[in-house]
Amino acid sequence: MSKLRSAPTLDDVARQAGVSTATVSRCLNAPDRVVEATRQRVMQAVEALGYTPNFAARVMAAKRTFTIGAIIPTMENAIFARGLQAFQEELHKRGYTLLVSSSAYRPEVEEEQIRTLVARGADGLLLIGHDRNPQIHDYLERQKVPAMVAWSYIPNARAPSIGFDNRQAMQALADRVIGLNHTRIAMISGVSEGNDRARLRIEGARDALRKRGLNPDSLSIIETSYEVENGAEAFARLISQSPHPTAILCGNDVLAAGALRQAQSMGLNVPEDVSITGFDDIELARIVSPALTTVHVPHREMGSKAALELVEMVENSTPGSTIRLQTEIVERQSLGPANNS
Amino acid sequence: MSKLRSAPTLDDVARQAGVSTATVSRCLNAPDRVVEATRQRVMQAVEALGYTPNFAARVMAAKRTFTIGAIIPTMENAIFARGLQAFQEELHKRGYTLLVSSSAYRPEVEEEQIRTLVARGADGLLLIGHDRNPQIHDYLERQKVPAMVAWSYIPNARAPSIGFDNRQAMQALADRVIGLNHTRIAMISGVSEGNDRARLRIEGARDALRKRGLNPDSLSIIETSYEVENGAEAFARLISQSPHPTAILCGNDVLAAGALRQAQSMGLNVPEDVSITGFDDIELARIVSPALTTVHVPHREMGSKAALELVEMVENSTPGSTIRLQTEIVERQSLGPANNS
Repeated sequence: MSKLRSAPTLDDVARQAGVSTATVSRCLNAPDRVVEATRQRVMQAVEALGYTPNFAARVMAAKRTFTIGAIIPTMENAIFARGLQAFQEELHKRGYTLLVSSSAYRPEVEEEQIRTLVARGADGLLLIGHDRNPQIHDYLERQKVPAMVAWSYIPNARAPSIGFDNRQAMQALADRVIGLNHTRIAMISGVSEGNDRARLRIEGARDALRKRGLNPDSLSIIETSYEVENGAEAFARLISQSPHPTAILCGNDVLAAGALRQAQSMGLNVPEDVSITGFDDIELARIVSPALTTVHVPHREMGSKAALELVEMVENSTPGSTIRLQTEIVERQSLGPANNS
Repeated sequence: MSKLRSAPTLDDVARQAGVSTATVSRCLNAPDRVVEATRQRVMQAVEALGYTPNFAARVMAAKRTFTIGAIIPTMENAIFARGLQAFQEELHKRGYTLLVSSSAYRPEVEEEQIRTLVARGADGLLLIGHDRNPQIHDYLERQKVPAMVAWSYIPNARAPSIGFDNRQAMQALADRVIGLNHTRIAMISGVSEGNDRARLRIEGARDALRKRGLNPDSLSIIETSYEVENGAEAFARLISQSPHPTAILCGNDVLAAGALRQAQSMGLNVPEDVSITGFDDIELARIVSPALTTVHVPHREMGSKAALELVEMVENSTPGSTIRLQTEIVERQSLGPANNS
């Protein structure tokens, strides 16, 4: 049979209507889910081409809800926002809708939200970080709902992940700080229990001290939740030490913004009196003054690649790849040479 | 029959287990949805009290999914984050899980997300603002899914709403600006099409000019999407006018943060050379320097009251109340007297 005369496929309909094949499937299997104008365009293409969906394809398509769930620790600041936006945009292109839950960094809330999203029919889940009760992954396997982890790269973990090496990234930044003659260094970290990213960043800072011949236990650490107020309070406590640290590494940009505000309200100049660094390179890092020296995380790349991987896992039952992305140090104005006077 | 001997109720079980009645319902009707430790505690209370759920109550309970959906225009900045967090906390107390979607300010995406959340069984929806195709409300009525609007108070609108009077709030702020002898005033607004909040804030600024005997059409307005970069670009265009405006009202704090950054990079002092105001009073308003004079929106109150109203609508089929909250002007350092030299 010549190509011209072969039966039209789902691909042909999608091309003619200018939509994804997933959207065509939805129009046929769950028309109530599709915006009316799109549905009409697709049905015109179906009619014009004389497309008849084959039974197997319909059954396969109907098994899906074209809904992906993501559970993030917080929406209160922008740490996850940009990556999640890219995740959603990529999913949207492929005909999937994203539903998001935020667990407030509480494992029992995350578990409840995972169960809710599975009960509501999510085809796949995006989770943040690897620290969680392994029974949750058993549950997801039984339910045949694939999950992808982001924001943390750990090879051979229970779930495939896309992220960066938190430990190595903080080590590189701390090494830069030590290279500017800082020896009295402190850290304001997120709560490390149940948070592999926070824990690995602390380890990275300690690695840098060790490699530079400093005592890793000399690193003063305050753990607190990721809010501006907490960064300010922790800064006030650390700076009251005598002698006070000349550089304060913050576990993220939100804590660093709080530390910076507190320094200013105490009449201290940054970086002349004390250096402050961030992590993540969210928009906030460029808005504060002085702008933050921080670790740039490829948020959008992480989000869109996570979407591609997860859709692949959902549609083709693949196990999912683990992908390591690169971070880099962005030098702005909040880090300077040590004032060891 | 004495009270002591009356049959134990759902309330008794909830009290004994220290959980909400909704959680007890879930343990009985959808145990897979409940965290194991909670389920065990509830089942112990059921056994200890000898509770036997009556059939009608079980059927009623089973009709619900204890899932609420919210569709917000963006997660990319913190405008909706704090209110949504309070909304979720209040829902959580009542045994409901929140799923969130973000529409990127695109009506067709919002419509698709509404349909997804209904298809996934949401018991009720939170929507932002009143501007949308009325057919969506017809659809929600047919599906018997109640919806509550937040962030915009409009009496007698299609859906009940909880919010504040955007027009009056911006009028009050603009009046304060004019009282400081500013006559050349400009505005950086969000895109007003499809966004009642943005449109009403523009009207409010014009009202203030009119009431103070200034020409409302003298207000230069740039509409742009709510991102820091866009605030910066709009500021650069407005400040290049000759004579340039002495005060720039921004449609929200994010745009104001961008305007402020641009002013600083052009070597202008705020508020000596030009005043800049925000709207929303998100955390960003206090982090930037100078801190923003802005309109304080009661985010947490709005979020928790919206949750109470919506749960009431879901559980008791009430039509929902429309509630007006108060805003207030927060004076910080970004607004000063006009420099009309």
